[in-house]
This record gives sequence, structure tokens and C-alpha cells, in this order.
Amino acid sequence: MTEGTPHGLRAVYHLAVGAEDVARHVEALRYEQSVEVPPGAVRDPFVQKEILPLVESVEPAAGGFRATLAYATATTANDPAQLLNVLFGNCSMLPEVTLVDVELPRSLRDALGGPRHGVSGIRERLGVFGRPLTCSALKPMGLSPEALGDLCRRFAVAGIDVIKDDHGLADHAFCPFEARVEACQRAVELAEQETGHRKLYAPNLIGAPRALAEQLRIARERGVQAVLVAPFLVGLPTLFDLVRAPDGPIVLAHPAFAGTSRIAPAVLHGRLLRAWGADAVIFPHAGGRFAAYDETVCRDLARRLREPAEPLRPALPVAAGGMRVERVEELVSFYGADVMLLVGGQLLEAGPALAERSRAFVERVARAADGLRSPPV
Amino acid sequence: MTEGTPHGLRAVYHLAVGAEDVARHVEALRYEQSVEVPPGAVRDPFVQKEILPLVESVEPAAGGFRATLAYATATTANDPAQLLNVLFGNCSMLPEVTLVDVELPRSLRDALGGPRHGVSGIRERLGVFGRPLTCSALKPMGLSPEALGDLCRRFAVAGIDVIKDDHGLADHAFCPFEARVEACQRAVELAEQETGHRKLYAPNLIGAPRALAEQLRIARERGVQAVLVAPFLVGLPTLFDLVRAPDGPIVLAHPAFAGTSRIAPAVLHGRLLRAWGADAVIFPHAGGRFAAYDETVCRDLARRLREPAEPLRPALPVAAGGMRVERVEELVSFYGADVMLLVGGQLLEAGPALAERSRAFVERVARAADGLRSPPV
Repeated sequence: MTEGTPHGLRAVYHLAVGAEDVARHVEALRYEQSVEVPPGAVRDPFVQKEILPLVESVEPAAGGFRATLAYATATTANDPAQLLNVLFGNCSMLPEVTLVDVELPRSLRDALGGPRHGVSGIRERLGVFGRPLTCSALKPMGLSPEALGDLCRRFAVAGIDVIKDDHGLADHAFCPFEARVEACQRAVELAEQETGHRKLYAPNLIGAPRALAEQLRIARERGVQAVLVAPFLVGLPTLFDLVRAPDGPIVLAHPAFAGTSRIAPAVLHGRLLRAWGADAVIFPHAGGRFAAYDETVCRDLARRLREPAEPLRPALPVAAGGMRVERVEELVSFYGADVMLLVGGQLLEAGPALAERSRAFVERVARAADGLRSPPV
Repeated sequence: MTEGTPHGLRAVYHLAVGAEDVARHVEALRYEQSVEVPPGAVRDPFVQKEILPLVESVEPAAGGFRATLAYATATTANDPAQLLNVLFGNCSMLPEVTLVDVELPRSLRDALGGPRHGVSGIRERLGVFGRPLTCSALKPMGLSPEALGDLCRRFAVAGIDVIKDDHGLADHAFCPFEARVEACQRAVELAEQETGHRKLYAPNLIGAPRALAEQLRIARERGVQAVLVAPFLVGLPTLFDLVRAPDGPIVLAHPAFAGTSRIAPAVLHGRLLRAWGADAVIFPHAGGRFAAYDETVCRDLARRLREPAEPLRPALPVAAGGMRVERVEELVSFYGADVMLLVGGQLLEAGPALAERSRAFVERVARAADGLRSPPV
């Protein structure tokens, strides 16, 4: 099965079934994910040949079987929502089925387009090359725009590269979007003038598509160049539109509402978010608050974000979810230079020592990067 | 905790943990779903009192504990995406946490608005009262617009009330959206003239928000009055915008990409889809192809769609997922009159006998309804 064939979209499923049932389940999956009728209702030769997926392999795997289906690329209509439908629409409701891998053919990668800025675009905007980037978060929810702006300034002056809203900051009555964006963007601009180093503030866009478009407009008017969005909350296809907005900003994807139980995390965050266009992808690194993401998952996820997949630009992995300054050397050794490290709660916990702990974070990243040769992941 | 309190949004989680760990997990959940910082970083009294959720109860339950949190309604910003974030954003990545129930306070129900047409709007459009509605699906994917239009006419003449696209029909090269909608809408209009009975054709809208808006425009121009959409593919907040479009159509929600493993199906399809505005909700009924939906789940789901919840209009449950004509009496007895029965594959399997089997479906529903007094569910 090569990329040029009509059946160029490959999906690998884990089926938690016994050997006596696997053939029946694979055949049911073939029909469920394409024509969704009993085999007896498929009479048209075009449907039989050009619509039904092919079974490429079925192999024993821990706890069941691994089945690879090759879908007719045309069934996706080159559409970001329909592609999800073909890969995991109805079978998301079959508890025995997990989506463990996806390979997008060149034609689909061309149609989706991937990141607009990617790793290189983020580095150019910041003027930072050859070392991991640093990131922190503005929180907790409940602070006023002024308090968040002040926090933003302190992070920026301490040398943090990217300062993002917590994904919980919406257009709240107690902290309206417009006032918050104004305060925080002004704070990074002042810090840039003060320190001579470029910074990015990324406000959180959240809402239905019309609200999101209005938030983007407000942010762009204020000079914002990067945004945070949670694609699983707003919808993956909405991320797709956001990335393609005229003069679209750098987009950081947040994993809220992603779950992890039925689509392999490396596929969801690594393969799909990059194809849909996220420039940087935030995910919980191993050893933080989210146990489902172990080192194997994180390595696989980062590889998929950064590996060659023309024409998709590489996207930046953002290790997060309870990271601590003490782990900087370990994280840099694990990911190499093309990563962003996100430390949020631990810096905020420092209280009056926030600036000091933030500077320590920034300096440890710079020092750890001196020892780097090539990305180890 | 009454509806008028600031902490009026109630969510019930199942925590698959032992008695020695439950207190720690509940406390972690409180912080994860609101401020997302360590307790030491919460110094502001407003944040402590008005942002952090309250723990209403923690009780033993099969396989762990049931914890009820009361969230500050203001944290949702009355926004359809942020509400998902508060209910299940980060904790979707904690495998031990399942969202098993949600109660929306009146203020959130007012803000979301719910179905535009609901059960009564669908009945009025069709002129059908006091009996279950019938529905079938146009498929398989791969047929031409003309073939689908012909199928649509045959279903409509046989007396099927609502004829929907398969959710796999997108804007395909081999069957473009516009040509399909034109052929199928014309087919139902001709059948209406022929039979004197009103019918609804519901094309499937699928894509990113901009593509969806364009498809809606085309459909409305052709006279279409109902649409199918898969909210979990396009994004729940996109459903919210669709329902609120000027002169918005009747919206049928399809469950593709919903999964079932970490949010209780009755909450996802019953509580949330109604609040976000679906007029009719398609889900797999017990005994079909999707074993995760047993009778208890389906009963609970239908109850949540139809029970009083001012100002939300009742939404119509649509039993689907491999239903058969032989089960009509059982289904009508289970759901009562306010239901739509969807039989797809079995009618298509009939081949030349499609019209006859479709008429049998329609007649059995009418006969079964004669015996109804009040909805048994």
C-alpha cells in the first residue's frame, strides 16, 4: 500500500477480542466505518471497490489483536471533520476498539496543511535558537485583569519566553477577555522594551466559533501574536479554521477534554493536532499529575510532532502538567532543544519569590542547553 | 445547595480509587477543575470563596466512590465550551475519573437555551401527533446524488417521516453536497405532493465552522428544513452556534465520535446535547450493534431528553444503531409516543422489496401507537 493508491489512509486499531471472534470484528469494523449497512445492502461495484476499506493485516497483540485498515482517501472528502469520522466515528462507541495509529497520505497532508508557523516560526518570532523555550501560565482563575497583567510582567521580566493564560480563563464577568488581553499584552510589550528580549503572550480563546472569531479579532487588534486554544473543547475542526484565519497567530494547543482512554495519546496529540495545524502542543509529561502519559507515550508523541512529514511543518512539543524547576536537566536531556518547558503552579507557589524562581527556571534551561548536541528523542 | 446559590452547577464523578486515597483525589479534583494550581498558590480570598468548587458529598459506590462537586456557576462564563472545560477539561486525562451526572442551574439553562424546535416543533412541521415518528437513512456512501435522490423518494412515498443522510455523507468528489441536497430535497417535495403527507429530508452537515455555514446556506436555499450534524465530530460548541443561526433548521444530532467510556452516555447524549440545542438525538438502542448502551442507559437518556427542565424544550430521542422492523412493538412499548425510530440498513438490505419493507415499518409503528396511553419511560 503506497501513498499514491486510492486506499492511502491507514488506521491501526487494537481490538480487545479473542481469536475466535477477531475475523468477525474486523469485518464489522470495515463496514461500520465506511458504508454502515449490512454486506447484503452493498450492491454497487464502485462502493465495493472504491469505498470499503481494505484489511492490510491482523496480528496478535497484548490483550487482543492489532488490525490495520487502509481506507479510500476519497471517503474523507479532504475534510477535517470527516477525516475524524472515517478514523473513529461510530467505532468510538465500540468499547473493544482503540485507535492506536494513523498514517495520513500525502494528499491529505496537503489538504490539511498543518502548522502555519511551527517550530521555526515560533523560534523566529522569539529570536531564540538552539535551546528549549520556557513557558509559564497566568492563573488562578478569579484574579483580576490587573493582577494577571502584573503576574505577566513579572514572568516576562524574569525571562520566560511564552506566557500563556490558564486554559480556565474565559470571558468571565470577574475578568473580561478584552481587559485581560489588554493588560497582559501591554505587560509583555513593556517587558520587551525593558529587557530587550522578545516575548509572547498567548491569551486563551474559548467559545463557540462565532465567539472565538470575535476574541481573535480583539486579540489581534491589541497586537497579540500567539493564542492558546483547547481543540477538544472547541472542536478539532474549529482549530483547523482558526489556523487558517487571515494573518493567523501562533497557535498553542491545550489538551483539556482530550481524554486518553480510546485513542492513543501519541496519535491524538502528536499526529492529529499537528495535521490540524497546532504550532505547539501542550501535553502532560511523565511523572507529573497525569499518570496515563508515561515516558514511552511522551517520546512517541514528541517524535510525531517533529519528524519529517512534508508539507507539514514540525510542531513544538510543550511538556507540562505539574513540571518542576528541579526537573529541567532531565527534561532537556529527554527532549533536546526543540521543546518548550511549561512550569506553572510551582512558580506561582513561590509567592514573593516568584521572580527569583522564574529566573532560576530560565537559567537552568539555558545551562542545560549548553550540553546539548542533537535532539535525543 | 439550591439553584440560586453561586455554586449552582453540580457534577457527580465516579472515582475508581480506594478508601485510603479518596479524600486526596477529591481535593485534587477540586483544584484541577478550577484554579489548577497547588493549594499554596491560592491566596486571594475571592478565589478561595467564589471560584473553588464545594464538595457536596462523597459516598461509596461500586468500584470506588461517587463525589459530588458544586461549581461556582460564574466560572463557566455562561459559555458552551467553557462549561465543558469546567465539567471535564483536565480530569478527562485522569483515567480514574468518570463524569456520571450533571445538573445545570436555571441560569445556565437560560444562557444555553436548548432546542429551538424540540419535540413539539418537529411534530408541528410534520403534522404528526400521538405516535412515534419513523426515520431512515440514505446510504451507503459511494452512491451518486441521483441514486440517493431515488432512494429518498422511495422512503418518502412509503411513508417514512424523516429521511436523513448517513452521517458518512460529506462533500465528496463522487457525490457533492449541493447536488445531493438538490436531488433529495426535490424527492421529498415531490413525495409530499404525491401523498399529501409532510416529510423532512435532513442532509448531513460536516466540516469546520466555515464549511458548515456554507453547507447550511446551500441547504436553506434549496428549502431544507432539518439537518443532521455529529456534534462530537464538529465540536459541541459548533452545534451551539448552528442552533442559533438565523432561521435555524431542525437539528438532529448523530453520536459519531462520542465514545462512551469516560462520560456516562445518558449525560453526554441526554443532558448535554439537549442543553447545547439538539432537537432530536440519535443514539444506539439496546440490543443493536453497540453493546455499551443497555436498556438502563437508554431509559435514563430518553428521560433526560424529555423531562421538564425550563426553559429547555424537550428533545426527541431517536433509537437507532441496528434497529429492525420486528422490534417496533417492543420499542414503542419502551419509549412511548415521543420517540423517533430509525431503521436504516435493514430497509436497504431488502433490495427490490425496499418499498414494501418500509411500508411495513410505517404501518407497524402506527398500529403499535394505537395501544399507547402515556409514555412508559
